[in-house]
Amino acid sequence: MEEFNFINSIKSKYYKQSSVIKGIGDDGAIINPVNGEHLVISTDTMVENVHFSLDYMALEDIGHRVLAANISDLAAMGSRPLYYMVNISSPSTYDNSQLIQIMNGMTALACHYQMDLIGGDTTSSDQLVITVTVFGAKLSSLNRLRSSAKENDIVFVTGRLGEAAYGFKYIQDGIASKDNYFINRHIRPIPRIDFAEETNDIKRICLNDVSDGIASELNEIAEESNVTIEIDWSNIPIHHEMKDLDKATLKQFSLSSGEDFELVGTCSQDDWERIQKKCESKGIAVTHIGHVLNNDQNQAKVILKDEKSRLVLNRDGYQHGK
Amino acid sequence: MEEFNFINSIKSKYYKQSSVIKGIGDDGAIINPVNGEHLVISTDTMVENVHFSLDYMALEDIGHRVLAANISDLAAMGSRPLYYMVNISSPSTYDNSQLIQIMNGMTALACHYQMDLIGGDTTSSDQLVITVTVFGAKLSSLNRLRSSAKENDIVFVTGRLGEAAYGFKYIQDGIASKDNYFINRHIRPIPRIDFAEETNDIKRICLNDVSDGIASELNEIAEESNVTIEIDWSNIPIHHEMKDLDKATLKQFSLSSGEDFELVGTCSQDDWERIQKKCESKGIAVTHIGHVLNNDQNQAKVILKDEKSRLVLNRDGYQHGK
Repeated sequence: MEEFNFINSIKSKYYKQSSVIKGIGDDGAIINPVNGEHLVISTDTMVENVHFSLDYMALEDIGHRVLAANISDLAAMGSRPLYYMVNISSPSTYDNSQLIQIMNGMTALACHYQMDLIGGDTTSSDQLVITVTVFGAKLSSLNRLRSSAKENDIVFVTGRLGEAAYGFKYIQDGIASKDNYFINRHIRPIPRIDFAEETNDIKRICLNDVSDGIASELNEIAEESNVTIEIDWSNIPIHHEMKDLDKATLKQFSLSSGEDFELVGTCSQDDWERIQKKCESKGIAVTHIGHVLNNDQNQAKVILKDEKSRLVLNRDGYQHGK
Repeated sequence: MEEFNFINSIKSKYYKQSSVIKGIGDDGAIINPVNGEHLVISTDTMVENVHFSLDYMALEDIGHRVLAANISDLAAMGSRPLYYMVNISSPSTYDNSQLIQIMNGMTALACHYQMDLIGGDTTSSDQLVITVTVFGAKLSSLNRLRSSAKENDIVFVTGRLGEAAYGFKYIQDGIASKDNYFINRHIRPIPRIDFAEETNDIKRICLNDVSDGIASELNEIAEESNVTIEIDWSNIPIHHEMKDLDKATLKQFSLSSGEDFELVGTCSQDDWERIQKKCESKGIAVTHIGHVLNNDQNQAKVILKDEKSRLVLNRDGYQHGK
């Protein structure tokens, strides 16, 4: 497989992005960056039986999921997707048709965002290991960093939380129908590029994608921005079907199970009204779930307010009094 | 290991490249590309027991080698190294100290080129799999593509060929001393960024790095440029110590064994004189090994001229009459 340059064999005849001077087929890709734009780059590796399993996912699903998780990082940086690179290490039992299935899962998603495959590598290995590197562009004036939350900001989240975890529970229970909404949320997540696009005239949005659960993502924001964030359990957007779950499970799914690939962030009160209007007009759900407190004590932490309690929420979703 | 963000823990306190707006520590890196420069991007994966072995290489060596192979692609694109990303998948028996050893091997080389680590990922896997993605810049006016060879061009190579393969033979024979020049050429290759830098005022050089052997690299150039290349066996630069090898082995090492990470290319007669002078002044060995023929028959091929024969040289080093 190494001898046969697989990636070369699946290269496009033309590139959608005019900034691609040379794509696949030389020692490296050549990009002509657009003046006034910053380039955003993110990379993620997914490993068989660690991040996905062939027991319940087709190779196309795996391709989709690895690329989607990477594009989600571009969304969280407020950027427009441009290109991607793919490194696939696979067992010697794999042939080209299997690699093409993985790539087909990526290509369908990439086409949706007009992304070009500009490079990559295939190697042999004992287990399937896929690294995807994605490239996006954003106006240099936009700030989407985790460190940009400010006191009195609104805290919001897109979509609903915990659905990927709930879908995974269905899979564990032996249900594997791809018609199932929740299973699809786990297997075929859709990154929130629509939100990034709609809000690309708002200068500052502190933004993170929900890959590890909002307990983790909000703690990252609190630490990087050195702020205290308070969220209200009653405002967490949850699918009505999940409300039958016991509360502990529901909290685990919606606060500390990740891979929903929604976006969580903070913005000013004024911008929140604009964001709401923009998202409403495009059918993108956004929910106000809390706010950034006056940080008199200069403490970086996340507080979860419930009917009866007000507890500190750790990265892992554990709640405690102080 | 996944929980602990290793890459985050080894991030620099400052970045050498002023174009890094945000390095490690958010959903993606942010780069502010330099006006008038193109960005060059290349990626390679190396897998334990496929591309390297811990039997004769230290983890630092492996780190060095993976990054060096990637930087070699930047050299072959005539670009100045800027940044790199590292994705390491490693067995659960690995702890942070072992990952740090791998990174130390990279950092030493990266420092030499003022490269910044701007992102990456660590995951669990059954065997060590390392993906490195490198970024470089070059003036938009420079052409270093494989497709840019022209009739009557000079064909040249940097350094000497077959030394990494000869070093690997030493290792196979049970010799593993790192004081051995040839073993070092295998384990700790030095990419030819010096050549790329010295020649960055020459507009067109058709260039390829010797990762698979010049039989393969020259065939790539011949095919991409649609030219016939003739090289002369008597001109291939070979270390005097290797001349004791039988001719078949010597040809195999110098023509079809790769990983010397030298550069092979073609340029005009006028530019060849300039390249020679520039390289001589910097102590970079370059050797004229052949030329691009008048391509009357419009055939893409490589011919190896010997004392007695003139045979077609295939990608794999096999020679035949037609």
